[in-house]
Amino acid sequence: MFAYKCIVCYDGSRYNGWQRQGNTSNTIQEKLETTLSKLIEETIEIQGAGRTDMGVHALGQVIHFHCKADIEMLFGLEIFLQKLNGFLPKDIRIVEISPCDIRFHARLNAKGKIYKYQIDMSSYGNVFLRTTANHISDKLDVAAMKKAANYLIGEHDFKSFTTNKRMKKSSVRTIYDISFEEDTKRELLTIRFNGNGFLYNMVRIIVGTLIEVGLGQREASLIPDILKVCDRSAAGHTAMPQGLFLEKVLY
Amino acid sequence: MFAYKCIVCYDGSRYNGWQRQGNTSNTIQEKLETTLSKLIEETIEIQGAGRTDMGVHALGQVIHFHCKADIEMLFGLEIFLQKLNGFLPKDIRIVEISPCDIRFHARLNAKGKIYKYQIDMSSYGNVFLRTTANHISDKLDVAAMKKAANYLIGEHDFKSFTTNKRMKKSSVRTIYDISFEEDTKRELLTIRFNGNGFLYNMVRIIVGTLIEVGLGQREASLIPDILKVCDRSAAGHTAMPQGLFLEKVLY
Repeated sequence: MFAYKCIVCYDGSRYNGWQRQGNTSNTIQEKLETTLSKLIEETIEIQGAGRTDMGVHALGQVIHFHCKADIEMLFGLEIFLQKLNGFLPKDIRIVEISPCDIRFHARLNAKGKIYKYQIDMSSYGNVFLRTTANHISDKLDVAAMKKAANYLIGEHDFKSFTTNKRMKKSSVRTIYDISFEEDTKRELLTIRFNGNGFLYNMVRIIVGTLIEVGLGQREASLIPDILKVCDRSAAGHTAMPQGLFLEKVLY
Repeated sequence: MFAYKCIVCYDGSRYNGWQRQGNTSNTIQEKLETTLSKLIEETIEIQGAGRTDMGVHALGQVIHFHCKADIEMLFGLEIFLQKLNGFLPKDIRIVEISPCDIRFHARLNAKGKIYKYQIDMSSYGNVFLRTTANHISDKLDVAAMKKAANYLIGEHDFKSFTTNKRMKKSSVRTIYDISFEEDTKRELLTIRFNGNGFLYNMVRIIVGTLIEVGLGQREASLIPDILKVCDRSAAGHTAMPQGLFLEKVLY
């Protein structure tokens, strides 16, 4: 048995999210599995590091898979990658492939992840950011958003910031950093989250809450209270998926 | 009669180009005219500075139109712009409107234009540049492309670089500058053209020729010969429309 690790980029706009599930078709996982299976001539199952939602993008999703074929011997890795991308739709690309330890697991071995969220702050909406940013036309108080974000850095129980109701496991996570980057020319605000793991919808609920702070609808200083109550209804709305990117998985 | 000048951005991907023509529907001009007519409650005809082709984008298209209504009095310009963008599809935005002299003509008064052309130089194609860049996976010799571009700067007869067959008017134009910008992180090459005017398909044929130089299929030093023969067949292919943007119109 051989094991391979890949880095995958995709524009999630046209897909029903990452995960292949019972009746859900047109998922990114499904497209990748079908294409890999066709090329390797085996049924390939892949494991992704993060299960991105419908409309969410990836710049550095990591997957692993096992197969009987020795891809290096059979194709050569570079040629395999070219063939693979030739078969894949143009909004999904495998940009790197390497052999990995048979025990490597893309999700379970991940030590952390970096997500970024893009907010289009232009008055009327940038025509080229329709599917890759959340357009907020009202003026955002970025300083207040930064202040609010600072309360979230560190180890906390993020139960208020997830929609997973059946969660039995711990909802304690550590956010190492939340950074803000303003591209004034493009009027684009990028918020980047670096953490040891993120609960279901956690980044989007944090962003939704930060946007409400930025719009003056919430006080930044009340973030510690939201964390404390461990109740989803205390936090803000779930921000739209199209601004979110899984940027990097850390091992 | 009142006259107004607007700056328009659009993602040309979904449209049959700029110009409303006999049977051609789904043009950008048509969308703008329909929306303006509805809002102003008059039949509005617009004139654009440049007639971009199918798939070509604009960051700073300029239009003018005349109407009986005094938009400033009736709506206020800011409110008018908000309403207008509310009615327009999200891939067309009017970002500025101002009253102008009744004699102002967006196309005839233009003293120059800036176009940019984006080339995605990544190995497998950036999933987020599918509709806004031309993907060239083979290595481009950018230094050779710059050398070739330098021969085109200045006043020349660009007859070899246009597909307009019925052209009776002069095909002499002046290119003030062709600049290259390499974004190594995004593996994106931007070629920017600043000139007093551009013939039909001129930028795309120049880019097609430069790409052939970059791929080693043509010698940069032969550009003066291509100019000299005044024959379309001497130049390179017409590069794909999706990399092209009308960036600015100069008055």
